[in-house]
Amino acid sequence: MKLSELGEERVVAALTRDLRANRRVVLRAGDDCAVVKVGRELQLLKVDSVIEGVHFLPQAEPSWVGWKALCRPISDIAAMGGVPNDALVAIAVRADQEFAWVRGFYKGLKRAADAYRVNLVGGETSKSPGPTFISVSLTGSLEAGRFVSRAGGRQNDLLYVSGKLGGSLNGKHLKFRPRVEEARWLVRHFSIHAMMDLSDGLAADLPRLAKASGTGFEVDLKRIPINRGCSLRNALEDGEDYELLFAAPRSEQKKLVHQWSRAFPKLPLTCVGHLAAPNSHSFLGDGYDHFRSGTRHEYQRECNAGREIQKRRNSSV
Amino acid sequence: MKLSELGEERVVAALTRDLRANRRVVLRAGDDCAVVKVGRELQLLKVDSVIEGVHFLPQAEPSWVGWKALCRPISDIAAMGGVPNDALVAIAVRADQEFAWVRGFYKGLKRAADAYRVNLVGGETSKSPGPTFISVSLTGSLEAGRFVSRAGGRQNDLLYVSGKLGGSLNGKHLKFRPRVEEARWLVRHFSIHAMMDLSDGLAADLPRLAKASGTGFEVDLKRIPINRGCSLRNALEDGEDYELLFAAPRSEQKKLVHQWSRAFPKLPLTCVGHLAAPNSHSFLGDGYDHFRSGTRHEYQRECNAGREIQKRRNSSV
Repeated sequence: MKLSELGEERVVAALTRDLRANRRVVLRAGDDCAVVKVGRELQLLKVDSVIEGVHFLPQAEPSWVGWKALCRPISDIAAMGGVPNDALVAIAVRADQEFAWVRGFYKGLKRAADAYRVNLVGGETSKSPGPTFISVSLTGSLEAGRFVSRAGGRQNDLLYVSGKLGGSLNGKHLKFRPRVEEARWLVRHFSIHAMMDLSDGLAADLPRLAKASGTGFEVDLKRIPINRGCSLRNALEDGEDYELLFAAPRSEQKKLVHQWSRAFPKLPLTCVGHLAAPNSHSFLGDGYDHFRSGTRHEYQRECNAGREIQKRRNSSV
Repeated sequence: MKLSELGEERVVAALTRDLRANRRVVLRAGDDCAVVKVGRELQLLKVDSVIEGVHFLPQAEPSWVGWKALCRPISDIAAMGGVPNDALVAIAVRADQEFAWVRGFYKGLKRAADAYRVNLVGGETSKSPGPTFISVSLTGSLEAGRFVSRAGGRQNDLLYVSGKLGGSLNGKHLKFRPRVEEARWLVRHFSIHAMMDLSDGLAADLPRLAKASGTGFEVDLKRIPINRGCSLRNALEDGEDYELLFAAPRSEQKKLVHQWSRAFPKLPLTCVGHLAAPNSHSFLGDGYDHFRSGTRHEYQRECNAGREIQKRRNSSV
């Protein structure tokens, strides 16, 4: 059977059964990051790839490709309430690629490393027989001493989204800012029960958070914060927003909303709904699935051509 | 300028200048692994990539590709005297790839993880628009509390090689066994001044160890341990031996050779020469340089066709 017939989630589920893990492993594949014990500390571990033709187009500004390559795993570390630390960069490029491209890529990588205080400690440069392939691994630590997974949400917790959603293909998918400071602030000051970063779109990511938490959800579609020029569908399904989605108790709502607006006056925080009984889902739809929906850019072409996304499981949107 | 005109070492040197590093970073890019402080512990970090058409052929048995993908960074952790711990696996495959291939790949990955007690803690599966690309990141710890870099060698240290060299393209490049146990034994019982794993061939790797140590070297070519069916040139230049190369004081030679043969009776240990004054190099030649010499398989075709390797810097072999 072809991978495209199975879909990413079933492939990953089949492959990651029976993986070896000793007592040092606290949390494995399936959340934003893995969590392991190193001496007395908890360490976060994450790898993310950026591939030419899938995550960026050949004509993309190389420094923004470098920015994106490092900021993707930074966003995952943030979503667990962690602080990013040390990065390893593997890059494979064609031998006839211009050195200027790779230099530009590293420029963006270094800018992201400076902005988020990440050490670029090592890497590997290989020859690619085809497209440019970049993979960045990142370690993180937990300032608060504890991590926030996707699994801690409880029924009636309110659901919040930072920033605005949709339209990542208009450049934001390269130029986003991981919400490290915001996530650390949340974890320090509030009881955040569950959190993740929105990489595949709210319609795909929220069901994952709810499933991990053993709950359902109810979302008021009128409340979704939508970027200018985007439709509701863009906001739910474009993906690559890299905003925070989190669940927190109702009792903290007033204080949370008030203090957020003072701490981060330029970044909206929106309560979009709540976690509900396991069988309750107020919307369903899909974000981006690597093996089924084609590349992000193919996906956009599909949308532009006005074609229905074939893989919709439910038409309640 | 094209990458192929610059060569891998100059590209990497240009890119890794001015990288951000705080006080937690003990050793950065340039050795087998990076070394960072995590709490009170020292941690080793390494990433290695395995690319279809460069590091393996499409018809290669997928489980051995998985084995190789994890064993490459394990070999680097071993070469620093470390113990491998937690791995992250990024893999990009064509959507029309058979699921059986990926399952076979994971089978080999798990076999290597079991053999070397590595936790597979996370990963990422993406769609590739072309060849299969795999990148494995690995953390390691230092049982002995200290690491062995390439830089600690001293003039008159003897140079040793484990196992036999050459002929990796006859399958050994997929099926090698990283020398973790041997390296840990060495570090525990002897004063190992400098160590690395032989990935690009002795002719390319030894000059790197000597340069890092600020020494030259003298190698007796008659002593090079050569795999059956291989020439001296194969032993020096094929690369991908994944054997240990290390420098240790002359005073420990007798004890080291004797105890090694009792601890590892099936694995030869050969003293091939010694570190010398900085301007002394008893042989020169090149191993495998990603951007200049083509893929490993192109390289073999070159050799088979009897063509001189263009990039030879010195003809003393």
